[in-house]
Amino acid sequence: MSAIEALIGEFGRLPGIGRKTAQRLTYYLLKGRPEDASRLAGAIERVLAEVKPCDDCGNLSSEAPCEYCRNSRRDASQICVVEEASDITAIEASGRFRGKYHVLGGHLSPLDGVGPDELNVARLMHRLEDGVAELIVATNPSVEGEATAAYLHRAASRFSGLRVTRLARGLPVGGDLEYADGVTIAEAFSGRREM
Amino acid sequence: MSAIEALIGEFGRLPGIGRKTAQRLTYYLLKGRPEDASRLAGAIERVLAEVKPCDDCGNLSSEAPCEYCRNSRRDASQICVVEEASDITAIEASGRFRGKYHVLGGHLSPLDGVGPDELNVARLMHRLEDGVAELIVATNPSVEGEATAAYLHRAASRFSGLRVTRLARGLPVGGDLEYADGVTIAEAFSGRREM
Repeated sequence: MSAIEALIGEFGRLPGIGRKTAQRLTYYLLKGRPEDASRLAGAIERVLAEVKPCDDCGNLSSEAPCEYCRNSRRDASQICVVEEASDITAIEASGRFRGKYHVLGGHLSPLDGVGPDELNVARLMHRLEDGVAELIVATNPSVEGEATAAYLHRAASRFSGLRVTRLARGLPVGGDLEYADGVTIAEAFSGRREM
Repeated sequence: MSAIEALIGEFGRLPGIGRKTAQRLTYYLLKGRPEDASRLAGAIERVLAEVKPCDDCGNLSSEAPCEYCRNSRRDASQICVVEEASDITAIEASGRFRGKYHVLGGHLSPLDGVGPDELNVARLMHRLEDGVAELIVATNPSVEGEATAAYLHRAASRFSGLRVTRLARGLPVGGDLEYADGVTIAEAFSGRREM
């Protein structure tokens, strides 16, 4: 296989990138400065060499422990549990959480053979023994995310005095009521608040 | 900058890839098998090392001369001139052309300082001296592509006996008349054929 075909194939294996886009990216790199393409290849090699899951929270990071676990100004009495390390970026962008994180590495999915032992749950339970006041469950608002949240709620019930909360569901800000699905609108009704 | 941030930045420099997609691709590689990410980095390094413009036609290829120039079963009396090497893939997919190619490396764009000397035009004129019967101009159906086509038509007029043709404009197959723009419909009218 030619070098060009090989690169189109590799780009095409990435999520959301079809053959046409893979071709476009390949020729973009070929038309551009060789340094730019080299930097992309180097950045891939660098994450492979440097990035590991944090022993404490499971977040993917070049540092051990990760930046959130090391940061003593973050509130250790709150742990926000997410499915994937990438969810942390989204939460940090909101600027509303200053506690610690815990990354499960997925959600419960019995059909795919993913039970609590396949997720980073035992370590979470261990961390909860250490005087945590609130566990904020921020798994996805999907069927699997809800099942995972329900499981964590039960598993954490043995820690008396621990508050277990779940992110609110409702209408996305800037969204349009007309285009919201029925389940979201139902959640928005049941979670409505005094103005 | 962390390794993860660096890779998100590099992906985000690619065309059509915003920050969110760059994040998704980065975490996809991190969650997947290291071999897969390594293969992508290796494929980029390989095109950088191997791929060069063909001396004859300007096509990007790991071989010199490129596969189309070397292929003696392709009709050397027809040359199809395109803006970019990637256009060749699209034309080959149509299965309707068995001649040779010539890649300009862009289109005329006086405002960006791209004149005939910045494109692979001199070499094309040289090739036309060699008993070519038809020059098929397949520059893009855009303002710049048309201007480039008109320029090539004039430049090639000194070769008596050379037919210069342009790909037909009209309704795209599988498209919907309702959604076609006025200029395309006008072209379809003026190019209409007996049924």
